[in-house]
Amino acid sequence: MRFSQTFIKTLRDAPKDETARGAQYLNRAGYVHKEMAGVYDYLPLGLRVLEKIKKIIREELNAIGGQEVLMSTLQNPAPWQKTDRWDPEKIDVWFKTELSAGGELGLAPTHEEPFTNMMKNYISSYKDLPVYTYQIQTKFRNELRAKSGIMRTREFLMNDMYSFSADESSHDQFYHEVEKAYARIFDRLGIGEDTYQTFASGGVFSKYSHEFQTLTEVGEDTIYYNTDKTVFLNEEVLEDEILEEFNVKRNELASARGAEVGNIFTLKTKYSAPLELNYTNQDGERQPVIMGCYGIGISRVMGVIAEKCADEKGLVWPEAVAPYRFYLIGIGEKGQARAEELYKGHEKEILFDDRDLRPGEKFADAELLGIPYRIVISDKTLNNDAVELTSRSDSETKNLPFSELEQMFS
Amino acid sequence: MRFSQTFIKTLRDAPKDETARGAQYLNRAGYVHKEMAGVYDYLPLGLRVLEKIKKIIREELNAIGGQEVLMSTLQNPAPWQKTDRWDPEKIDVWFKTELSAGGELGLAPTHEEPFTNMMKNYISSYKDLPVYTYQIQTKFRNELRAKSGIMRTREFLMNDMYSFSADESSHDQFYHEVEKAYARIFDRLGIGEDTYQTFASGGVFSKYSHEFQTLTEVGEDTIYYNTDKTVFLNEEVLEDEILEEFNVKRNELASARGAEVGNIFTLKTKYSAPLELNYTNQDGERQPVIMGCYGIGISRVMGVIAEKCADEKGLVWPEAVAPYRFYLIGIGEKGQARAEELYKGHEKEILFDDRDLRPGEKFADAELLGIPYRIVISDKTLNNDAVELTSRSDSETKNLPFSELEQMFS
Repeated sequence: MRFSQTFIKTLRDAPKDETARGAQYLNRAGYVHKEMAGVYDYLPLGLRVLEKIKKIIREELNAIGGQEVLMSTLQNPAPWQKTDRWDPEKIDVWFKTELSAGGELGLAPTHEEPFTNMMKNYISSYKDLPVYTYQIQTKFRNELRAKSGIMRTREFLMNDMYSFSADESSHDQFYHEVEKAYARIFDRLGIGEDTYQTFASGGVFSKYSHEFQTLTEVGEDTIYYNTDKTVFLNEEVLEDEILEEFNVKRNELASARGAEVGNIFTLKTKYSAPLELNYTNQDGERQPVIMGCYGIGISRVMGVIAEKCADEKGLVWPEAVAPYRFYLIGIGEKGQARAEELYKGHEKEILFDDRDLRPGEKFADAELLGIPYRIVISDKTLNNDAVELTSRSDSETKNLPFSELEQMFS
Repeated sequence: MRFSQTFIKTLRDAPKDETARGAQYLNRAGYVHKEMAGVYDYLPLGLRVLEKIKKIIREELNAIGGQEVLMSTLQNPAPWQKTDRWDPEKIDVWFKTELSAGGELGLAPTHEEPFTNMMKNYISSYKDLPVYTYQIQTKFRNELRAKSGIMRTREFLMNDMYSFSADESSHDQFYHEVEKAYARIFDRLGIGEDTYQTFASGGVFSKYSHEFQTLTEVGEDTIYYNTDKTVFLNEEVLEDEILEEFNVKRNELASARGAEVGNIFTLKTKYSAPLELNYTNQDGERQPVIMGCYGIGISRVMGVIAEKCADEKGLVWPEAVAPYRFYLIGIGEKGQARAEELYKGHEKEILFDDRDLRPGEKFADAELLGIPYRIVISDKTLNNDAVELTSRSDSETKNLPFSELEQMFS
């Protein structure tokens, strides 16, 4: 992309109520635009980051048999009344609205009910099981307080998957597949090293659920872990009985702030029983389907990466999610002409700063935007038939001959 | 895709209130699932159709300089109050909701206000113009009556583009570019021959807007046209003065039902003036930006294609939007084994009906689903080292040697 041809400009100031560092950078660098507290627009570079996250998630979920669908936002009360989740005292983040034709509707904060309900069309026998289905869709949650930029918002992009199994052992098997797939996803997103699977409360139907928590100062949760980092517990499960089960002592646990980037739940028959999603087993008996649900906050992950992967100069995107791999600057007439040449054929990987600005301003924007590699071409580098290549993550600079540079493009 | 591995089953019956033929097929074939009147889920095959439509739109809009973004659904009243469109008497399809933290919000039925408002961050000088920006996003409209399946819904996927130009002549130039891009889009979608650019009322700020109307019996609009099909007029502009302008007589006009698949508007300063989106021109004067807006109903286009491209047996997708190009059936042990071989390496183009069903049921589903080409492999075809290839659109069947079949894959 040519910088001169996008409408984006880097801004001197972020919105005043934007306090987290990564959120300030995302606004200033033109990745997002804040509509109001907890509601954001995604501008061209921000949308590219979201698309890269989505692609990684799709690849990993398709690999374990996930089938993608797209469910509606508008929700009929009926199935939510059957599970007793329509009442705002049961789900306190509902946005509700009214139909002109009469009747109340909700904006889905999650999708267990519609998935369970829809599957009654498609699951009737053990031969129809298992089914794993997911979506990438916009969720709405009427949070009292929105904060930390795109980390905790009222409208956000989420990936949610639902599994439908015949019995608990086949459910457990898939649940473990998801654990591994999520670990691969966070690894590929560049936050695997700091993301831990924690034990969280499981609700009525199972002892534990699991969260994937990324350690970061701006996280909302507190995570407790033992010295060899084999046990990670959420604050809510920090009870004597549970500590005993994991053979850890409270005073031996260290704590850190974490941001929840994913969670996985065993639902058993919590939704299938009240919504009557049953199947006929091999003995001809009707039984409720065993379910699980699994979620990754896509825009939240982008926010978490922006907080974690940043320094005093700006964002530092991991390569897998960076909107472009290279930020290209040509200096002087010859440098600019050679940059034009290099750009051609590599438009998808290069953000070419062809604006009529001083090099210093371009260098500052390259750092603010956090593109992994900066390529500078000038008279000096051309004398060596080379470019100056600077890595954003470690600031290391080297002269790289054009022939070797070419091998870096995919 | 292997049919045995999707959760989809073809259903004997569509929902009872689904009256349009294409809508019935979309439900029965498992492309969509109806949540309630005017609200649908898109199942794996339906999502593939949407993705193919989106890809074509993106390619054509990027080619004329469009930059993709993603705006929020939740709307702050402020900018809509400035343009006097917050009042339900001005826009009668608003869905409104309440913030827990206090205050009313709306679900965007369209996005002129937030785009105009956001651009104040990015447009200040004539050097920043023109800007063309678009999104593919879910819109919400509180229609009193939803009908014709996914053609007129309360929640739908739309592509909307907004142009920001310095003056009317550069606006007009881009407007013509969009007219051509839209014609290419509808051509590529397979409905170009029956889609006509019509003159519609332009509102206060310009004499006409243009609609793209696809002729179909289930369309909601009535279109009038002259014998040589050079002038197409919407009912609303059928006035003496206008007929005179186009040099046509009312009694010479034929009429037909049309479904609006796109529309394009010259907005001039309708939004930029009240929202104060101004720029400094070359003489240093501040002037309001000249705007246009352009929209294609993506899920509606899918619905229109389903109505138009169907026969008494089911859907007949144009190749460009079909979820898969080939529907593969193996008959007998050898036929099934050879079908498995063919499937490998062509997973993205083939819907492989590997279910344990009689061939007759598979043939019926192949027709209901409307996949462009059916491939049957049986002992009989294998004797000639060939397949039986049947075109869904004209039911023509031929024996095609495997060597020639291979050339049909992309």
